[in-house]
Amino acid sequence: MKSRHIAADAEAQVHVIILDSGEEAFAALTRFANESGISAASLTAIGAFERATVGWFDIASKSYRKIEVDEQCEVLSAIGDVAVGDDGKPSLHVHIVLGLADGSTRGGHLLSGTVRPTLEVVLTEVPATLRRRKRGDLGIALIDLAATRD
Amino acid sequence: MKSRHIAADAEAQVHVIILDSGEEAFAALTRFANESGISAASLTAIGAFERATVGWFDIASKSYRKIEVDEQCEVLSAIGDVAVGDDGKPSLHVHIVLGLADGSTRGGHLLSGTVRPTLEVVLTEVPATLRRRKRGDLGIALIDLAATRD
Amino acid sequence: MKSRHIAADAEAQVHVIILDSGEEAFAALTRFANESGISAASLTAIGAFERATVGWFDIASKSYRKIEVDEQCEVLSAIGDVAVGDDGKPSLHVHIVLGLADGSTRGGHLLSGTVRPTLEVVLTEVPATLRRRKRGDLGIALIDLAATRD
Repeated sequence: MKSRHIAADAEAQVHVIILDSGEEAFAALTRFANESGISAASLTAIGAFERATVGWFDIASKSYRKIEVDEQCEVLSAIGDVAVGDDGKPSLHVHIVLGLADGSTRGGHLLSGTVRPTLEVVLTEVPATLRRRKRGDLGIALIDLAATRD
Repeated sequence: MKSRHIAADAEAQVHVIILDSGEEAFAALTRFANESGISAASLTAIGAFERATVGWFDIASKSYRKIEVDEQCEVLSAIGDVAVGDDGKPSLHVHIVLGLADGSTRGGHLLSGTVRPTLEVVLTEVPATLRRRKRGDLGIALIDLAATRD
Repeated sequence: MKSRHIAADAEAQVHVIILDSGEEAFAALTRFANESGISAASLTAIGAFERATVGWFDIASKSYRKIEVDEQCEVLSAIGDVAVGDDGKPSLHVHIVLGLADGSTRGGHLLSGTVRPTLEVVLTEVPATLRRRKRGDLGIALIDLAATRD
């Protein structure tokens, strides 16, 4: 992983992050957010994975059903955000659409994805603190704007 | 192709909008745009719907063919824009990709979607007025840059 | 719904580009990037194509396998970036998801797409120079942050 801050101004900061073959995208981007101390950001990405695991949220069981995509696939879209979790650390939330060799697609909540050969991420950081709070009724953490600070 | 530089420097405003279970996304975001007086913006979103109706534009009939997605689905991507319509009010245009329980996907022009449990929207407003004008030849309104003002 | 204004940003330049029926999107956006002298940008787009050709990258053959989508389709998402290639000219990289009449989807690396009736592109230019360099081991050019300048 390499990262570079490519624009600066009074407020929003744009980062480009490039992941290389073999890197697991969710862990790498979480590490970037932690090391950069990011407390609020949005991101988009394109590239390709050699395999991925995505999730579909099952309201009844309050958990993600895992879906394995065990083949080389284009990352057609990745859209996500960074907020601060209950543990005080940056928490990443990303959804992806993957394109298979025949042009069909799969997708879900990104659990893990192994990059091959690249993932190009544009992350826009804003000087605020978005909060993601665990919701006991749902079993997952959601952004809580009432707890968000500038 | 027409292009227009619509904003520079310390001008864009970033809004985070969180929708809750039971809210209809198209109506809620249109209401937000109206109440905030937004005349030009782009947006991305992720989250989940308990059901949605999307459209595919049929050139021959000049109308959207409705496609019902009547099951819990991840909102894998939502990308859209806000412009001002012929009635002088903010007009929302959003396309979405939805992920089903088996990882397959559906998508189209967003007509309506009922949130469950959240929709996380990042909307970037710029200080310009994009215009969407009804095109009699097509039956729908398209952005008209010639009518756009800074 | 809750909303919060979390930033007012700077330095980046926002362009809106509207393509019309019959225009080939990849060529038109490449021409725009060249004519505008863009050296680093990200973009999103929605709209519709009357047909498109997308690619899936085959690691073994170091080339894109072509997938033809020969029917009217919604452009559900287009996400991409602009960097400067080895020839010193702006180089466009875009991935798309397309929605067919039955709500099913196709997608891949955008090779070409013929617009019908519109493609609405929001391109955010930043004052840096991203470099895309041909990788002999892969057969394609990837963004190289080590060669990127502010």
